[in-house]
Amino acid sequence: MITSASNPRLKLVRRLESRRARDKLGLFACEGEDLVAAALDAGIEPVEALVDAERPALVERLTGAELVEPALLAGVSTLGHPPRVVAVFRRDDLPRGTGPPVGLALWQVGDPGNVGTLLRAADALGPAFVALSPGCADPTGAKALRAAMGATFRVPTAAWDEAPAPKAALVATAGTALWKAELPERVTFVLGSERDGLPAGVAAACDLCVSIPLAGAAESLNVAMAGTIALYEHRRRVG
Amino acid sequence: MITSASNPRLKLVRRLESRRARDKLGLFACEGEDLVAAALDAGIEPVEALVDAERPALVERLTGAELVEPALLAGVSTLGHPPRVVAVFRRDDLPRGTGPPVGLALWQVGDPGNVGTLLRAADALGPAFVALSPGCADPTGAKALRAAMGATFRVPTAAWDEAPAPKAALVATAGTALWKAELPERVTFVLGSERDGLPAGVAAACDLCVSIPLAGAAESLNVAMAGTIALYEHRRRVG
Repeated sequence: MITSASNPRLKLVRRLESRRARDKLGLFACEGEDLVAAALDAGIEPVEALVDAERPALVERLTGAELVEPALLAGVSTLGHPPRVVAVFRRDDLPRGTGPPVGLALWQVGDPGNVGTLLRAADALGPAFVALSPGCADPTGAKALRAAMGATFRVPTAAWDEAPAPKAALVATAGTALWKAELPERVTFVLGSERDGLPAGVAAACDLCVSIPLAGAAESLNVAMAGTIALYEHRRRVG
Repeated sequence: MITSASNPRLKLVRRLESRRARDKLGLFACEGEDLVAAALDAGIEPVEALVDAERPALVERLTGAELVEPALLAGVSTLGHPPRVVAVFRRDDLPRGTGPPVGLALWQVGDPGNVGTLLRAADALGPAFVALSPGCADPTGAKALRAAMGATFRVPTAAWDEAPAPKAALVATAGTALWKAELPERVTFVLGSERDGLPAGVAAACDLCVSIPLAGAAESLNVAMAGTIALYEHRRRVG
């Protein structure tokens, strides 16, 4: 049982709060039994697993889990309610690629909640992949993991450059109304940042431009809502 | 110019961080020039307006605005970046009713981000109203106001009991696929809480049940995403 805050496993979890450390080590920490169970259900095993000694969870599924004093586990948590389990995973074990027929390509979507929500949408309305440009929030950060609700372990991700054509840029105005657009059966929806949308050059490089027509004084939809709607529209058409 | 933290206007703004105070006084505080400008654009005037003395904003539109020492204004802000303006509005000045042909009725949606996002969706994909049950997050709290991006001042809200029939319950499974459902032209989509969805009795009291069919291992869509999709589907049909 771990009884010291200077235990190297606890220190690793704390260190992984920093994106730089995650990038360097290729690891990330995941809190809470629901998320860790989602990983195990997807066949992804952690490299470390720390379990609350007083409220153990998932121990029968986590070989090599270490029990930890509750206060110490709470100390490495980013949550209000301390988790019963924290596990460390390898980024390389996450699904990768652009295999599914539909996907999202995110241009500098910096809000981790939006990146996580879009992974959740790709999972629920897919199968779909998610390609991420440099400047996107890290999908393996704590907030993005929470918003994704386990989809992180099921949805393949790819680099921005890997997103296949044909591409449909989702722009705020001036595109064909999404519900009227002739969408290819295989399509990558390209979505811009929360603040600035898609740069003109990125939109121009796409095969078509579509918009979700907005009512009244509304200026835009949140990028997570726009991506969710695009995936729904595709899903509706394939039935 | 306000130079003391004990100024009654500053104290009022601080007090309005509490829902109980907002309920009692019928007032709420709104931070940031974008949100305050959205109110003014909608013809809604604040009862108090406090403006950063060093970076004044909207002063020409805010009659009776008081200049405040920047540190004092930052002190009453819930934001990371201190706002240039904080204004206090009357709840009774917000739009009310169930006039639009489509609406959302939210059952115990407790997350203020979701309530705000759904107001934003009702604004962008409407016109639509939003009815709220007891137990919903307060749409005039700081987080909900931010997520709504000004929609608070344009979208009519109503009490849960006021939502008109016909009602379509949005349930996780077992409803007709949303895109196949025969939706009335006037319809209230009924959405459940993040955690528990709709109680069976509430769903049974609706005129129809619809579901957004989900792929793979996904268990549910976030309530904000589900409501956004429902409004999109309605918008698509009316063209």
